[in-house]
Amino acid sequence: MMDKIGIIGGGAWGTALAQVLSRGGRDVTLWAREPDVVSSINGQNENVVFLPSVKLDKKLQATGDLEAMAKNDILLLVTPTQFIRATLEQMKDIGNKPLVICSKGVEIGTGLLPSQIVESVTPGTRIAILTGPTFAAEAAKGLPFAVTIAAKDIHFAEALQKSLSTKNFRLYASDDIIGAQLGGAIKNVIAIACGIVHGKKLGENARAALIARGLAEIGTLCEAMGGERETLMGLCGIGDLTLTCSSMQSRNFSLGAALGEGKSADEILGARKSVTEGVFTAKSATALAKKYKIQMPITQGVDAVLNHGMNVDEAIEALLSRPSAHEIPQ
Amino acid sequence: MMDKIGIIGGGAWGTALAQVLSRGGRDVTLWAREPDVVSSINGQNENVVFLPSVKLDKKLQATGDLEAMAKNDILLLVTPTQFIRATLEQMKDIGNKPLVICSKGVEIGTGLLPSQIVESVTPGTRIAILTGPTFAAEAAKGLPFAVTIAAKDIHFAEALQKSLSTKNFRLYASDDIIGAQLGGAIKNVIAIACGIVHGKKLGENARAALIARGLAEIGTLCEAMGGERETLMGLCGIGDLTLTCSSMQSRNFSLGAALGEGKSADEILGARKSVTEGVFTAKSATALAKKYKIQMPITQGVDAVLNHGMNVDEAIEALLSRPSAHEIPQ
Repeated sequence: MMDKIGIIGGGAWGTALAQVLSRGGRDVTLWAREPDVVSSINGQNENVVFLPSVKLDKKLQATGDLEAMAKNDILLLVTPTQFIRATLEQMKDIGNKPLVICSKGVEIGTGLLPSQIVESVTPGTRIAILTGPTFAAEAAKGLPFAVTIAAKDIHFAEALQKSLSTKNFRLYASDDIIGAQLGGAIKNVIAIACGIVHGKKLGENARAALIARGLAEIGTLCEAMGGERETLMGLCGIGDLTLTCSSMQSRNFSLGAALGEGKSADEILGARKSVTEGVFTAKSATALAKKYKIQMPITQGVDAVLNHGMNVDEAIEALLSRPSAHEIPQ
Repeated sequence: MMDKIGIIGGGAWGTALAQVLSRGGRDVTLWAREPDVVSSINGQNENVVFLPSVKLDKKLQATGDLEAMAKNDILLLVTPTQFIRATLEQMKDIGNKPLVICSKGVEIGTGLLPSQIVESVTPGTRIAILTGPTFAAEAAKGLPFAVTIAAKDIHFAEALQKSLSTKNFRLYASDDIIGAQLGGAIKNVIAIACGIVHGKKLGENARAALIARGLAEIGTLCEAMGGERETLMGLCGIGDLTLTCSSMQSRNFSLGAALGEGKSADEILGARKSVTEGVFTAKSATALAKKYKIQMPITQGVDAVLNHGMNVDEAIEALLSRPSAHEIPQ
């Protein structure tokens, strides 16, 4: 039995996963960097900072002691991608416990995926990836949701299916950790493009086409990096992409919408306190496309608009006037 | 050059395609079964019956003479799937012209896809499939859209890319006509399931999960019928599915939403004049699943609710309590 679960990261998603698993009968401890998160969970059964208005399970415990987390049977890593390295370095010894990475993104500077960061800091750790279409508030409220659980060894992924699933939380196993990570990392760039189409009132056909073509170019990067294109047909790929590209709740989609309406990126981003991840991912994914010598026209177009001053209309024109292509790039 | 294009079928989508191609400089003739469609297009440059409020290109001609359509270089077949057989039988000789099938669905009774109907009525005809996320009104207004063009011979598909594309209309080539047809045929069943989730307020995570799992089961049927799962990553698959499953404009999605809110299927369908295609497709796709001995749990659940009196809550419960599975079914 692997009943003691440690969640590393007390943001909205970490707290939601802690709540789901605690309600599902597991013994859950949540580590948070912020003392007020720890005290509000332990004192009021609520994460007033990152997931307000959701009453948490009374059994759920929070702690500020990172090293003590190694006592758990399984660890879920739910920090922002840019904090994975520092968190693991601070933790030093995770006691050879399975580490389920729930963070999505690409490390700025290195261009590494979360699993590659972990491999570089704590080599030898048994790694799995948990990712999919997951608005934290919905999951925390007990609504049903489903994710991909990926590990190089499919039997490890299958064991985690049993260890983590609850009545309303389903996990689908995969053995492709590259594909599983790329969907969640790059969807935010495609969401910006979909927002632009929305802001420019180009219609639902065009938005759906961008989702499909966006999936195709994530697939091309996936194959170049050693993953399988098919993995992106799952919850980690099309599931996450369709959610992010359809929701005005997404900061990336709404950034694109404002760009499409004629605002400038500086104007929009200057007024925001929180990070709009797709801006950085457009840059790092474009760098990956260059490294692997592949075409990612939507990603490259978003990067050109955000980071190189290209006009939105020019970017759309460039996309529409590309040469005819095959459905699945050869 | 293949500039003379005949469109067979004067519904909203046939009229929109005629408009797009006529504006794109082709010599287009539209055949419609209904005399008032023919007269309103020729007299008022508008299809007042099926695509009102869109001013059509003056060069666009309509006709009621089906046999004369064989004089065109390319024919686009845009009748409802259930009328393909009768239309082709009435036409008798299509003069060995390439036939681009734009109809989506499964023939009731036979369980045949459109290409299989054509092969049975006019064997030897060169066939292609044109399908994707396409709201007719948007395309007719000149907004950009993109589709899959599939033919067994990829060079034929590539030739059609050149013959049909316009400034705002892009075609992506594929050589898998089975995969290309299944997405458009079965999406309506998944849309009913997504509607149910919406009506029961189960959240966006659950809807996105159904889209991804729906794509997985369409892929399983596709492989069983000799197509390729990957084809469904394209415009014909995820493109069309994401559009239909996100829009309250879809009759199938809205049927599901009403079911989720507690209305009965008889009550909802009895009040409708137009056909809700997913009701029939749920039945025919379930028959195909049985024939090919595969699992299609979402499709089978929708069929059970619509055609065998299963309670909506029971169907959801059955989906959630299935055994753990792999992301891509083995």
